[in-house]
Amino acid sequence: MKKLINCPDDVVSEMLMGIEKAHPELIYHREVEVISRREKTVNKVGIVSGGGSGHEPAHAGYVGYGMLDAAVSGNVFASPSPDRIIKGIQEANTGQGVLLIIKNYSGDIMNFEMAKDIAEMDGIEVEVVVVRDDVAVEDSSYSAGRRGIAGTVFVHKVAGAKAQMGGSLQEVKAAAEKAIEHVNSMGLAMSPCILPGVGTPGFVLGDDDVEIGMGIHGEPGVFHTNVKTAKEFSEILIDKILEDYDYSDSEVAVMVNGLGSTPLMELYIMYNDVEAFLKEKNIKVYKSFVGNFMTALEMGGCSISLMKLDDELKELLDYEADTPGFKVR
Amino acid sequence: MKKLINCPDDVVSEMLMGIEKAHPELIYHREVEVISRREKTVNKVGIVSGGGSGHEPAHAGYVGYGMLDAAVSGNVFASPSPDRIIKGIQEANTGQGVLLIIKNYSGDIMNFEMAKDIAEMDGIEVEVVVVRDDVAVEDSSYSAGRRGIAGTVFVHKVAGAKAQMGGSLQEVKAAAEKAIEHVNSMGLAMSPCILPGVGTPGFVLGDDDVEIGMGIHGEPGVFHTNVKTAKEFSEILIDKILEDYDYSDSEVAVMVNGLGSTPLMELYIMYNDVEAFLKEKNIKVYKSFVGNFMTALEMGGCSISLMKLDDELKELLDYEADTPGFKVR
Repeated sequence: MKKLINCPDDVVSEMLMGIEKAHPELIYHREVEVISRREKTVNKVGIVSGGGSGHEPAHAGYVGYGMLDAAVSGNVFASPSPDRIIKGIQEANTGQGVLLIIKNYSGDIMNFEMAKDIAEMDGIEVEVVVVRDDVAVEDSSYSAGRRGIAGTVFVHKVAGAKAQMGGSLQEVKAAAEKAIEHVNSMGLAMSPCILPGVGTPGFVLGDDDVEIGMGIHGEPGVFHTNVKTAKEFSEILIDKILEDYDYSDSEVAVMVNGLGSTPLMELYIMYNDVEAFLKEKNIKVYKSFVGNFMTALEMGGCSISLMKLDDELKELLDYEADTPGFKVR
Repeated sequence: MKKLINCPDDVVSEMLMGIEKAHPELIYHREVEVISRREKTVNKVGIVSGGGSGHEPAHAGYVGYGMLDAAVSGNVFASPSPDRIIKGIQEANTGQGVLLIIKNYSGDIMNFEMAKDIAEMDGIEVEVVVVRDDVAVEDSSYSAGRRGIAGTVFVHKVAGAKAQMGGSLQEVKAAAEKAIEHVNSMGLAMSPCILPGVGTPGFVLGDDDVEIGMGIHGEPGVFHTNVKTAKEFSEILIDKILEDYDYSDSEVAVMVNGLGSTPLMELYIMYNDVEAFLKEKNIKVYKSFVGNFMTALEMGGCSISLMKLDDELKELLDYEADTPGFKVR
């Protein structure tokens, strides 16, 4: 296994140590694998997200001004335990309550809900939103209902901005729910990733084989196909999103997200085709994001996310953010 | 060949169209493959860089406030022709002259120098600096003298800030030269990249084979070794840099740069070891940058760059920047 690591058991803690060292504005809470902001904004609603590791920069890379207050890491592709999440909630809480943003995986739902209950017994008001943006499949290996994938980053941005602007817990939750309602994503995988603790690829794809709709943990997608052009792939992914949600005549935020090993060159080529196809469909791009936002270790491929915007979502998307993985100036 | 592209001949132009669409503050000048800032700062020294494509976000991704005014793209791993570079110079020029930042490859040197001469005949004052930060080899397949690699991004940042602050052409050049004098880099490759026009890997590495000192176009490095730990690799790379330049008792900027397909998780694990080893060597990290800054398509591996800092370089490094690939708030 060719990886720049020391020991498979230590990848998460050593990564988080590296993040703390590289970003002195963040604190790494050892043992509980939580990254939080060093300087807390008092009387602000706290925002916590997290989940399995291996999706970097999600989630620790989104801790900072205008986004998350704490990120809770599980092992690679494994949900964090409730005690870790409780620590995240405690760190994010400055008296106005805490919103948990969860991607829809059964393990995450169970553990975040349990942490919520315990934190509430300690007198912290906690609300939960669940992101289910992946239109690929209705139920999946690790989820009842649709999976949460890259669209989650938009939810972090929107909720984080609302909280930073002084919104109440209910207002922040409502903004997050609005983002969730209007965001949908669809991805494809071209090559597998290798879990450090396993050492071999999580799945096999032939030389001319691409899986449409594969999940960010290698969960089965919708169908296999041969290698097509960027234009054809962008249309396949967008058509599947549009089957589900009517974006016509609206303004959207677009994310073309790399899964880990896809060159930025290819993501921009995809975006060139995505924008052209959206224009054909009478969908106007307000803002776009091209890069690695929600990865699956070194998986090859990409996902496309669309979020329909109104004035409030535009303002929240444009609001200043300063985190390692997402900056708006 | 599994790539998200349409046609190998069009990868550069379609990528640059995608960049223009995704970043409306940038203009793509068709045919000449130049990206420049839409809003020019009048009476500012212009900064131009560029070279072969395939190193994204370098170079087009560094066009914007506080860094480059124009980036000139060649084909994948091929120098841009002089006419393209002249267009870049013209776009960057607002009356105070233009600095060209070149990575040390023979083709780039030749073409950028030729463009300089022609632009000067048109009355534009042009200065040139050449980055030679790669300590791996003294001469290489495509260079007389050391190659320019990821340390170039520090030179963009320093020169761009100096220009944005109102420095004269000679002052901007002096700042760039200072950065160049104090920056050194060293990399390793774990897996090859595939040129779109070729379709097969540019070199072969065995399952347990890593090449220390490989160039960002797959040029031969210093030696092969088996897979080692992140700690061992970070020490090998830093030791090679320190053989060459004495950073002890100084403050440095550090870049841990991914070559394209290495997960961010691994880059942070590397950084954790890099920082610890620098501390052992009595070298203090002032600021660090972990991510994909100067890639080689989907090559696997990383490079480490160190730049020794004085008060001026710190100020320039900290100065605001707003580009797609590098933001300082």
